[in-house]
Amino acid sequence: MRRVTLVGAGVSRFGVRKATLRDLIWEAGKACFDSVPTVKPRDLQGLVVGSVMPERTAFQSHLAPLAAEALGIRPDRLSARTEHMCASGTVGIRYAYAFIAAGLADLVMVLGVEKLNTPAGEEAILNMGTGVDREWEAAYGLTAPPSFALAAQAHMARYGTTEEQMALVSVKNHNHAAKNPYAHFQKGATLEQVLCSRMISTPFRLFMCSPITDGAAAVILASEERARDLTDRPVFILGTGQAVDGFTLTSLHPDYAHWPALRRAAEHAYGMAGLGPDDMDLAEVHDCFAIAEIIAYEELGFCGKGEGGRFVEKGLADYGGKVVVNPRGGLIGCGHPLGATGTAQAAEVFWQLRGEAGPRQVPGARVGLTHNNSGMGEHVVVLYGTDA
Amino acid sequence: MRRVTLVGAGVSRFGVRKATLRDLIWEAGKACFDSVPTVKPRDLQGLVVGSVMPERTAFQSHLAPLAAEALGIRPDRLSARTEHMCASGTVGIRYAYAFIAAGLADLVMVLGVEKLNTPAGEEAILNMGTGVDREWEAAYGLTAPPSFALAAQAHMARYGTTEEQMALVSVKNHNHAAKNPYAHFQKGATLEQVLCSRMISTPFRLFMCSPITDGAAAVILASEERARDLTDRPVFILGTGQAVDGFTLTSLHPDYAHWPALRRAAEHAYGMAGLGPDDMDLAEVHDCFAIAEIIAYEELGFCGKGEGGRFVEKGLADYGGKVVVNPRGGLIGCGHPLGATGTAQAAEVFWQLRGEAGPRQVPGARVGLTHNNSGMGEHVVVLYGTDA
Repeated sequence: MRRVTLVGAGVSRFGVRKATLRDLIWEAGKACFDSVPTVKPRDLQGLVVGSVMPERTAFQSHLAPLAAEALGIRPDRLSARTEHMCASGTVGIRYAYAFIAAGLADLVMVLGVEKLNTPAGEEAILNMGTGVDREWEAAYGLTAPPSFALAAQAHMARYGTTEEQMALVSVKNHNHAAKNPYAHFQKGATLEQVLCSRMISTPFRLFMCSPITDGAAAVILASEERARDLTDRPVFILGTGQAVDGFTLTSLHPDYAHWPALRRAAEHAYGMAGLGPDDMDLAEVHDCFAIAEIIAYEELGFCGKGEGGRFVEKGLADYGGKVVVNPRGGLIGCGHPLGATGTAQAAEVFWQLRGEAGPRQVPGARVGLTHNNSGMGEHVVVLYGTDA
Repeated sequence: MRRVTLVGAGVSRFGVRKATLRDLIWEAGKACFDSVPTVKPRDLQGLVVGSVMPERTAFQSHLAPLAAEALGIRPDRLSARTEHMCASGTVGIRYAYAFIAAGLADLVMVLGVEKLNTPAGEEAILNMGTGVDREWEAAYGLTAPPSFALAAQAHMARYGTTEEQMALVSVKNHNHAAKNPYAHFQKGATLEQVLCSRMISTPFRLFMCSPITDGAAAVILASEERARDLTDRPVFILGTGQAVDGFTLTSLHPDYAHWPALRRAAEHAYGMAGLGPDDMDLAEVHDCFAIAEIIAYEELGFCGKGEGGRFVEKGLADYGGKVVVNPRGGLIGCGHPLGATGTAQAAEVFWQLRGEAGPRQVPGARVGLTHNNSGMGEHVVVLYGTDA
């Protein structure tokens, strides 16, 4: 199996954008090409697009060739769109990764994109319901906020996790996003603001939830050999894991505060890399709701089970702590344009490991990970490092 | 790179089905598991689902974990949905193929599914328009039938291809489908029936077009080593290629009768396999419209450029000819449930190469290919054989 690297990354401005799907593709694609001047669009052998619901929001499927044409790419090895709800971008990175690792391609872009704020706010919210089981859950109102709220309630009941601890996740991530020029929210937040924001699904208040965001992000993957010709600072993919426990809530572990699929995905990625949680300098984890980041600390092994609330409270997930979690601001601060989230996380790790993260730089960062869940039972982890 | 095989295959009944998306997943998944009793759902390490527009037809994204749960599969290596319009199923096969070839997984199901005839016929037809560029083509009526009609007109003008020759593709495929118990149409067709059916987009009459069909199909991919434990007749993936010339018609070769991306995809697949067009015993090609099969004969190298019409007229694409094209009945006879078409083609090649195709059996078949286009500029080819 060949070693695979990242050689370029670019991200569009995230937010409620007056931009079409194609505008967002252009913006992130151009930024990505600008990051690696040695790569021209026609050099790429393929394009993978991560996107969840362009059929609903833009009446458009077949997004990979649309994006290739928009960016001047002419795939001759690989063209695909990947969808795995909130993990669609990372599932796309894994498609390109496998092709390059197997020797089937050498240079591929992965671009995640989602234009959610269209045609109207109400429809955008309804559309998010496509991610859970339509017949058994969404139709009865059990969409993502109440599902994750059940996990929060279970975690509070079992481990004594508090609303304040969850709010501290939001404060940290909003304050990180304030240093991120592409983030949806750039004003930071105080504990009082979070705890006084309106209730969405008990115990989640507005600021504990990721917003409905438009955006795109792209990375370029290369075989190690090809990367040596393109950049003197490639970032290596060291390992990756994905695991699924189930789709509907009734199929999951009876204790929603435990996410065994995340633990298995992380263990597989750590095993491939020969590394463990103590080696991570930073982690881009999937804080779709504040409780998700707290459970991720635990299942990723940054702290013991049930200790996630205290982990953030002690500042161990922030600069100067044990591992900097969500330096770009996470989904809560940056926003969550579904298909773009995974590729934007990869872009952040790329910049951090190359020392290019500006005011967000994690000092001396050499190893980092990205994590997405697309429900409480579906998880994917990718490990990146500066050395092969 | 490791060698990859097919070890099982199963297909649902195709047609206008009184069945939900989940019903179709169950039907094809069960048939697939029944085909290889040595594999239990929990043995699988992953599931890839090819599907184009469940967001529109079932208000459902996140289809891979839904299907995994429905089938009792618990992915611990790989879970993804792939979309590439009409090539979505084959693009999914390539995802699993790359994972297994790279050594990242050993046993993965790929299931294609589409429930198009819902909620109403008119909406089903509109939904098909998501496959072409919404802003520049679909909005002005340039959907698939008129696009491919331009290719037919060009081919007729340049090479003298006739309506009768295109109709003979339909007659052949309808008559093949009459021997296929899962096909949408099983009554066969005469030349008169095809030529007297109503005009859809000049020169395509109704019987020269693939219909709007519901269906699902699944195959199980295994590493060669794992396959040896599961079956004594694995079918090997010998090579694969994919190429994209462009998305909108204006981006394509100025002569729509030439599809250079198909030629490049085929040459790449032939090169990987060390084989050529003369080695093919059968070919499942993408006859979304009759002209597509005629151009595919040429670009796949079964005959010279411009000779496709005469190739079918002489019976060279049928039993007893040079290569049996679309023995299952193709998209025209079987129907075209977008995401399921590629996996159904793979299932047919699997059965043919194992001598299990019953009344459709191509005598002594040892090598076959599948081809999908998802537009005139996007093509994917996979080569299968009985020997590694």
